[in-house]
Amino acid sequence: MTNNSRPLILVVNDDGYQAKGLSALVHVAQKFGNVVVVAPDGTRSGMSHAVTFNDPLRLTGITTDDNLTIYKTNGTPVDCVKLGQKVVLKDKKIDLILSGINHGSNSSISVIYSGTVAAALEGSIENFPSIAFSLLNYSEEADFSAAAFYAEKIVEKVLENPLPPHTALNVNIPNVQRSDIKGMKITRQTKAFWHEEFIKRKDPNGKNYYWATGYLINEDTGKDSCEWALKNNYVSIQPLHFDLTAYEHINKLKFLEK
Amino acid sequence: MTNNSRPLILVVNDDGYQAKGLSALVHVAQKFGNVVVVAPDGTRSGMSHAVTFNDPLRLTGITTDDNLTIYKTNGTPVDCVKLGQKVVLKDKKIDLILSGINHGSNSSISVIYSGTVAAALEGSIENFPSIAFSLLNYSEEADFSAAAFYAEKIVEKVLENPLPPHTALNVNIPNVQRSDIKGMKITRQTKAFWHEEFIKRKDPNGKNYYWATGYLINEDTGKDSCEWALKNNYVSIQPLHFDLTAYEHINKLKFLEK
Repeated sequence: MTNNSRPLILVVNDDGYQAKGLSALVHVAQKFGNVVVVAPDGTRSGMSHAVTFNDPLRLTGITTDDNLTIYKTNGTPVDCVKLGQKVVLKDKKIDLILSGINHGSNSSISVIYSGTVAAALEGSIENFPSIAFSLLNYSEEADFSAAAFYAEKIVEKVLENPLPPHTALNVNIPNVQRSDIKGMKITRQTKAFWHEEFIKRKDPNGKNYYWATGYLINEDTGKDSCEWALKNNYVSIQPLHFDLTAYEHINKLKFLEK
Repeated sequence: MTNNSRPLILVVNDDGYQAKGLSALVHVAQKFGNVVVVAPDGTRSGMSHAVTFNDPLRLTGITTDDNLTIYKTNGTPVDCVKLGQKVVLKDKKIDLILSGINHGSNSSISVIYSGTVAAALEGSIENFPSIAFSLLNYSEEADFSAAAFYAEKIVEKVLENPLPPHTALNVNIPNVQRSDIKGMKITRQTKAFWHEEFIKRKDPNGKNYYWATGYLINEDTGKDSCEWALKNNYVSIQPLHFDLTAYEHINKLKFLEK
């Protein structure tokens, strides 16, 4: 296979261009195709689908040791997809967009806060097959070997079998040894929510500031949910779409038209 | 009616605490209840559902002339909802969350990029009735009188008739005179997408930077779509939910489990 006939794979993330999880995903991608990386110049956690249009964007190419070019930007994860597609790849057909591997879970309601997931969703808006990967370990030094093993399995299948149009995958991998993972499950978003708390502190000038913290409250025990799969050591694969319309309520709300 | 029995209304936005659209919405809210405002300290356009947990949040109360207290924060629109609920209102029951009135459209795919809409969606995660309002005029000096008229109609109806659980409304108002608005339509998200372009410039040091621009491509002519309603001078009311699962594809993707 010549280089030109290999799939073109754009890899992005939200933990920044130096993250170990990005490196793990790049190694997976290089087994299948020609890889271009566009990543933030530092961590961009919790950025969701944020885009930058009121500030200028920077984009710098860095050639790494093994003949791979990584671009870093001051933008968000979604900006990385847009810059990758339009500026770096100049509208070339992208065969696959991979986002991650995120350091930490992006299951249940975190789907909506996650920049890693939003980047894959952005890819699906443009109708590129797009997959977000997250490992349930927030450490910078997390062991990505099991996550990379499953990422490779999934990438191989998706390159062989096209995803439905405008559909992204949100993949979460339990933080256990590869031998303890029982398999993969197609899941739905768990009906679980963050309980937020704000810790109040005073700065050296006596002014208040707040740190947001919280924990997940999950009363959804459905065996088809992402949290059930992860708790039971399955890799969770959730198909995502970007139409937020609550179709089930359209008829109930007709009274508002009057 | 005593002050204590009036509905408690939290008003937020993404254009910042000094925006004309916020002021218009506060005036509407004051007709119905006791109003608390938490707004960003400047514009936060395109922030989507971004949240701040890697940086400290500031929150400052400002008493305005007419006995109204507005809090400003360095956070995102979604942070405004969380800070309002947890820090300012200390988990008191909120009867209604209003977001906006945004200076500019948040219809079709913009739903996913908008901080105004995300703030209402965040309210619905906590199961507070939540409504985002946007006027199709990006000017800082836009005329909000027609938008305020319709916001008042919708707020009145929603206070009388509870929204379905965990459902937010995304309201867009055409930029025409009130007399030219034909009415209100319950709509679905239009299948339209932004075509992005990046304008490349050089800074005084000779380094490149990019401005994101773009335009909407809409090939969805459905009369139940938000774009159709707006183009035909109807106020568009789209019910929103925050479950991004593409349920229709779950069975088609079972091959990935193997």
